[in-house]
Amino acid sequence: MKKKISEKIIINKFLKKLNFNKSGTYNFENDAGYLNISKNYKTIVTTDTITENVDFFKNDPPDSIAQKIFCINLSDLSAMGSSPIAYSLNLSITSKIDNIWLEKFTNKLFLLQKKYNIYLIGGDISKSRQLSFSATFFGKAKLKNILSQNKCNLDDDIWVTGNLGNSYLGYKIFKNFKLKINKKNQDFYKKCYLYPEPCIFGSIASKFITASIDISDGFYGDLNKILNNKVGAKIIKKNIPISKSIKSLILDNYSQINIDQILRWGDDYQLIFTANKKYKNKINNLAKKNNIKLSNVGSIIKEKGIFDDSMNLIKNLSSFDHFC
Amino acid sequence: MKKKISEKIIINKFLKKLNFNKSGTYNFENDAGYLNISKNYKTIVTTDTITENVDFFKNDPPDSIAQKIFCINLSDLSAMGSSPIAYSLNLSITSKIDNIWLEKFTNKLFLLQKKYNIYLIGGDISKSRQLSFSATFFGKAKLKNILSQNKCNLDDDIWVTGNLGNSYLGYKIFKNFKLKINKKNQDFYKKCYLYPEPCIFGSIASKFITASIDISDGFYGDLNKILNNKVGAKIIKKNIPISKSIKSLILDNYSQINIDQILRWGDDYQLIFTANKKYKNKINNLAKKNNIKLSNVGSIIKEKGIFDDSMNLIKNLSSFDHFC
Repeated sequence: MKKKISEKIIINKFLKKLNFNKSGTYNFENDAGYLNISKNYKTIVTTDTITENVDFFKNDPPDSIAQKIFCINLSDLSAMGSSPIAYSLNLSITSKIDNIWLEKFTNKLFLLQKKYNIYLIGGDISKSRQLSFSATFFGKAKLKNILSQNKCNLDDDIWVTGNLGNSYLGYKIFKNFKLKINKKNQDFYKKCYLYPEPCIFGSIASKFITASIDISDGFYGDLNKILNNKVGAKIIKKNIPISKSIKSLILDNYSQINIDQILRWGDDYQLIFTANKKYKNKINNLAKKNNIKLSNVGSIIKEKGIFDDSMNLIKNLSSFDHFC
Repeated sequence: MKKKISEKIIINKFLKKLNFNKSGTYNFENDAGYLNISKNYKTIVTTDTITENVDFFKNDPPDSIAQKIFCINLSDLSAMGSSPIAYSLNLSITSKIDNIWLEKFTNKLFLLQKKYNIYLIGGDISKSRQLSFSATFFGKAKLKNILSQNKCNLDDDIWVTGNLGNSYLGYKIFKNFKLKINKKNQDFYKKCYLYPEPCIFGSIASKFITASIDISDGFYGDLNKILNNKVGAKIIKKNIPISKSIKSLILDNYSQINIDQILRWGDDYQLIFTANKKYKNKINNLAKKNNIKLSNVGSIIKEKGIFDDSMNLIKNLSSFDHFC
């Protein structure tokens, strides 16, 4: 028998375990909570909403939705050079959501909280015709280490973390796009799409970074935000980090996968950042120490726009827009 | 001609004016922002989602929705004894939302920000089949002045701010409930329903208050949260603050309006708080000085439950639940 759900049950049975008994949460029995941020640190705030049929599909696994909520927000905190502390969560759920769904969803949140050492400070539950989740994440950083998108300098190196395109390929596989790719790799890319991982290198390397952004709207579009119509970028296309199997798909004319599609696709949640060339070794060493793949993909130039190795201007940088 | 809307237009044309040029907002050109909270203060966090057909109706005026977003959250901050600093806003909007709607909505936000001296730190825009707004509000308070719901003591006075039932009556008028009430009063109560005002007495009187909550789910239900199944309350019903015209409707048998309906209805956003009897005068003076109506409606007693003047137990305290 399907058990009746009430706000009280959702809070007591599923959400309370997520406050980790932190004093400012009042065990979710209060109107609001308070944050404990150490002196000399600023509270970094980022917020995102993910909605059914836009950012995920109704029948996606609940733990995939939990992972996406964490990834998009932790990725933003990292791009600001901050490390996460806590988050609040607004659940807008439909009448179809049951105990089993909530258990899977909150168990994943619990595991992610343990992994990133953060707690749930509070939230809100409402009923909706469409599944939707708004989360506000709080990080901390010293003022001098806070990163922003718009502070790159001429001749800075342009760096990218991880590999690009894994989530794109996962999406294509889910959409039954015909691709010559074995089952094991198919599963790998589907996992990259459903369970994206944030790259936390921003807070680790913040003192060497001049500007940074996470790739949520596509490599070109997000790099363009760093350039901010003030400078340009020369990109060495062969240095763009792409997995072996995607490389072979690009070389295979029948696959209809090309590098530009990948560079215009969001959801990679890797970081693009810029840094003075003199820190090249230090940055590479930090990445190695933290087991993070890092690629130097180009440099900041005076001429506005994004150019390839032969200084051909790359056009159509448009990134994802909900309304276009 | 209806102008095409994009995230960029929404941000540049409507939202940027709301950051009040505060340094931590990065003029909304960054992944996240940071909060400036003075040393020795805690950051209070509260969050609420309001959704079409639950908390408002699709054709409600946009400035009413803006007012509700502010009221429900400022009211929670006040109940915590804190004063507001900033907020973040997640807009989930449908394709029917146009420039005119956005202008009215953001103009009201602008006015409310001026009134309460707060700014928008950041947010998120997404497309949805249903209008929905999540807001996270940040306040500040010294740790010793933070209020919670569960710290009342035996013999404490129980206080209520403002008048109860105004929003309830406004709702009834909108629903064409037949009531003997003149046009001027009708307009007044409709306004109370569409444009609820938070009571900011919590941060003003926090050092005298033992426990507090805002009335968002009904007087009985919210008072019951203060009692927390540990103590009880004796309520002097004639002291419950109700406007003259509602009082005469209650006395009129044909109106089908009774006091218990009013005390079970949420959306008053007045505060219920408890305080030691010795502070009666100090609290009354503070209220007068700040032009806030205050009523002493009873006291905390040992016997669990809520009782009327003759010590009859009041049953059915259930408050609003989205899922029941």
